[in-house]
Amino acid sequence: MALEPDQAPVDSITLFVALLCSCIVLGHLLEKNRWFNESIIALAIGLCTGIVILFTTEGQRSHLLVFNEELFFIYLLPPIIFNAGFQVKKKQFFHNFVTIILFGAVGTLISFVIISIGTMKLFKKLDIGFLDIGDYLALGAIFSATDSVCTLQVLNQDETPLLYSIVFGEGVVNDATSIVLFNAIQKFDLSHITSSIFMEFMGNFLYFFITSTLLGVAVGLVSAYIIKKLYIGRHSTDREVSLMILMAYLSYMMAELFDLSSILTVFFCGIVMSHYTWHNVTEGSRITTKHAFATLSFISEIFIFLYVGMDALDIEKWQVVIKSPGTSAGVSSILLGLVLLGRAASVFPLSFISNLIKRSQSDKFTLNQQVTIWWAGLMRGSVSVALAYNQFTRSGRTQLLGNAIMITSTISVVLFSTVVFGLMTKPLIRLLLSSKHLSSTTSSESFPYKPMTDPPLTANGQTADHETGGNNIPRPTSLRMLLTTPANTVHYYWRKFDDSVMRPLFGGRGFAPYAPGSPTEPLLH
Amino acid sequence: MALEPDQAPVDSITLFVALLCSCIVLGHLLEKNRWFNESIIALAIGLCTGIVILFTTEGQRSHLLVFNEELFFIYLLPPIIFNAGFQVKKKQFFHNFVTIILFGAVGTLISFVIISIGTMKLFKKLDIGFLDIGDYLALGAIFSATDSVCTLQVLNQDETPLLYSIVFGEGVVNDATSIVLFNAIQKFDLSHITSSIFMEFMGNFLYFFITSTLLGVAVGLVSAYIIKKLYIGRHSTDREVSLMILMAYLSYMMAELFDLSSILTVFFCGIVMSHYTWHNVTEGSRITTKHAFATLSFISEIFIFLYVGMDALDIEKWQVVIKSPGTSAGVSSILLGLVLLGRAASVFPLSFISNLIKRSQSDKFTLNQQVTIWWAGLMRGSVSVALAYNQFTRSGRTQLLGNAIMITSTISVVLFSTVVFGLMTKPLIRLLLSSKHLSSTTSSESFPYKPMTDPPLTANGQTADHETGGNNIPRPTSLRMLLTTPANTVHYYWRKFDDSVMRPLFGGRGFAPYAPGSPTEPLLH
Repeated sequence: MALEPDQAPVDSITLFVALLCSCIVLGHLLEKNRWFNESIIALAIGLCTGIVILFTTEGQRSHLLVFNEELFFIYLLPPIIFNAGFQVKKKQFFHNFVTIILFGAVGTLISFVIISIGTMKLFKKLDIGFLDIGDYLALGAIFSATDSVCTLQVLNQDETPLLYSIVFGEGVVNDATSIVLFNAIQKFDLSHITSSIFMEFMGNFLYFFITSTLLGVAVGLVSAYIIKKLYIGRHSTDREVSLMILMAYLSYMMAELFDLSSILTVFFCGIVMSHYTWHNVTEGSRITTKHAFATLSFISEIFIFLYVGMDALDIEKWQVVIKSPGTSAGVSSILLGLVLLGRAASVFPLSFISNLIKRSQSDKFTLNQQVTIWWAGLMRGSVSVALAYNQFTRSGRTQLLGNAIMITSTISVVLFSTVVFGLMTKPLIRLLLSSKHLSSTTSSESFPYKPMTDPPLTANGQTADHETGGNNIPRPTSLRMLLTTPANTVHYYWRKFDDSVMRPLFGGRGFAPYAPGSPTEPLLH
Repeated sequence: MALEPDQAPVDSITLFVALLCSCIVLGHLLEKNRWFNESIIALAIGLCTGIVILFTTEGQRSHLLVFNEELFFIYLLPPIIFNAGFQVKKKQFFHNFVTIILFGAVGTLISFVIISIGTMKLFKKLDIGFLDIGDYLALGAIFSATDSVCTLQVLNQDETPLLYSIVFGEGVVNDATSIVLFNAIQKFDLSHITSSIFMEFMGNFLYFFITSTLLGVAVGLVSAYIIKKLYIGRHSTDREVSLMILMAYLSYMMAELFDLSSILTVFFCGIVMSHYTWHNVTEGSRITTKHAFATLSFISEIFIFLYVGMDALDIEKWQVVIKSPGTSAGVSSILLGLVLLGRAASVFPLSFISNLIKRSQSDKFTLNQQVTIWWAGLMRGSVSVALAYNQFTRSGRTQLLGNAIMITSTISVVLFSTVVFGLMTKPLIRLLLSSKHLSSTTSSESFPYKPMTDPPLTANGQTADHETGGNNIPRPTSLRMLLTTPANTVHYYWRKFDDSVMRPLFGGRGFAPYAPGSPTEPLLH
């Protein structure tokens, strides 16, 4: 099958697009099946295609497109993370903000430390090539990045809002933390850590977090201000939608340019855009952006899983590893064990701390819920693969034994955790949370993408927001109350500030400019 | 400004995205201005940025991204053409089908012949490098491709439906014809034309046209069938939208793979999708796809004009040309003159023929309308640039004098025609068509993107379609009527076939599956 070099991309893209279509159709057909979800289907189709390509090319190659890290970080990741911010239930997210940061940032750090130290100690007994301290720390960062996509397809936002928002929020903060950690590791000379270098590292880490968030918020507010001031939808809906897409992307690229955490930036840009900008556009643009962002994110996710499935059979990597199968299996098992351990060591102690802070009995995590959170963060996915490629390959090739083993082990862990843990998730969650919601779970399990189904605008964060504006939040009447429920108090004053300063300036619910001929309200109530 | 090679793409993309945003905002602000439109603004911003980059890099380069033909044909062109098919008023398009094919295909061929022969005769007197017969024919194809984007921003679909549909339809068929011609020229050995080669060429040309159309129709029907059968929106709106986007793109890539005219394929895929598939999805998906496709097309168009503006200042090309400024100016003038002549030689005779065929006096083209059609097709745009790069550069570099002159002349013609002709279009059309529509033109000129403004679903082809199903088309009662109004008769029997066979099978208006919880009708009536 000797293709002209000129023609190769066209047939690869054609086949890839056809496979994406088949993933979607199969995903729909297997929707009701309790074992499958879209990620597993995409992985399976990718694996099968890989086998077919392997045979047709007589063992030359298994993938259609060479994994391009740029493709992942510049084109596929932004829509996924932006959509996460855009669709998040903001009330739940900010209500559980402390817990989410605790799990997402502190939890990831605990997991990072355990995996780094664990690999450092355990790998020395195996006969693998040379790895320096930077590699071990990178492994810690790589395997701390959870993949919550699978779980989100199973958890239901309306049945278990607390768990959903924790797992969702944690997943985003966790991704950001791992990537920030990873970048920091690559930048610093870690061969001789002193306390001053460590302090600089921590300062850098905090600086990343805060400036990235602020950049995202700033770009989001600028987009809200422009669209409110000019009221672009008056002339053309396309312009509004284009501007929202381009500004969101701009926030991501600006963060990349300034060496910030683009993932955090675009996440907060998404939150601000859904809180302000989204209310300033016409009704048509609102429906369009909701669905279009979700669709882009959906396609990117399937794309990644399909690719990982195909890449798992890449012959070149396995040829190096095959000479020492025991070592490779050992490395994969150690990594998988450390992932389980690291996650347990972060979730259970942090749940305990979180329960101590919380006053209300109903807000505390039961053991079953803790196990669910633990389990929901065990899958490793696209971020891990992308980071591993970044650390252990140079332009897609793997020569050194140590590097080849790390790549194949990463793929093994991702495949195993996604397929085996993923397959067990639906039944397990049903078992663990059955006491409360068994009947409703069965009836509505066919809507895993709840926020996206019809009617499109009643199940999203905007409605939740509105409730918050009402009497859900008790007015703090004393200093004692401020101390016991700091989150609620902060939320109360933020509301006041939002209503009196932010919304009049940037638009938002109730402050959007009047749209002539656009029936704004009927769809929202 | 020595950038690290690694960092260059990120800052280029960031700046480019920021420029795209500013084009949209400026386009909105200058909306009411009678001289400007989005294309001219994008060109102007591109030129200014090019100047700035030229100064900051001390004359090294003027563009941010190197023009990649693949980028244009694989990513930017498909959304533009698909959206053209998706948004076209099908009633008008098929009603004027014969005229559109006459102008689009025959007119382009006339223009192609005149430009090819004209350049062959006139260029010999100028001192330019060697050009073979293939180059002259390629020039004919390159400068036969009109750019109707500018004009469509000025013509109004509701005021002058006949002119709009002719210019719109002609533009698409014209693009397809030029690209098919161009590809055929590159493939055939044209140094010694015999009658058998000519016949083969024509046969090839017809084969391209018919198979490309059929492929587009087939992919569109498959998408309609899948979505109707499975009713994917029941579970997830994202899946429907993803599937529509991916299938549309698949049709384009399949045509590329089979060496067909991908532009015709994706255009007819768009028509079929808007006629069948679009009616089978949920209401949310309908609004989303309408706007999302228009938005993608809009962004692609601005992207292209912005790039052309920047590229116009590329120093390398001008350095070769600057030694013979007279020749270069001569070539540009000759090409511009031939474009004017070729267009006149196709529009006026074909309008005469078209008027002969038509029975109804009101359907015939007045002289003013003929001048408008002639003028509306004078602009040369992105297709010309892309084809010229394909023919006269190898990997973006221009060494030969002849090739360099051709590239710079193409850019000169595109810039001159877009800016000068483009600036004059709005006033000219107002002058020519003023007798009938002066008052309504003034009031509604602020909605050039008419099909996209609110309410989104009442101004598009679906409503027009519906009327057609009523009593607009007279039932043919005699053979004489069949001969005098063939288009209407064909339309009548197509309607019957569509209602009795196609719609029950593939869905479409009135035959879409029932959507639980989705209020389909209110928005459509």
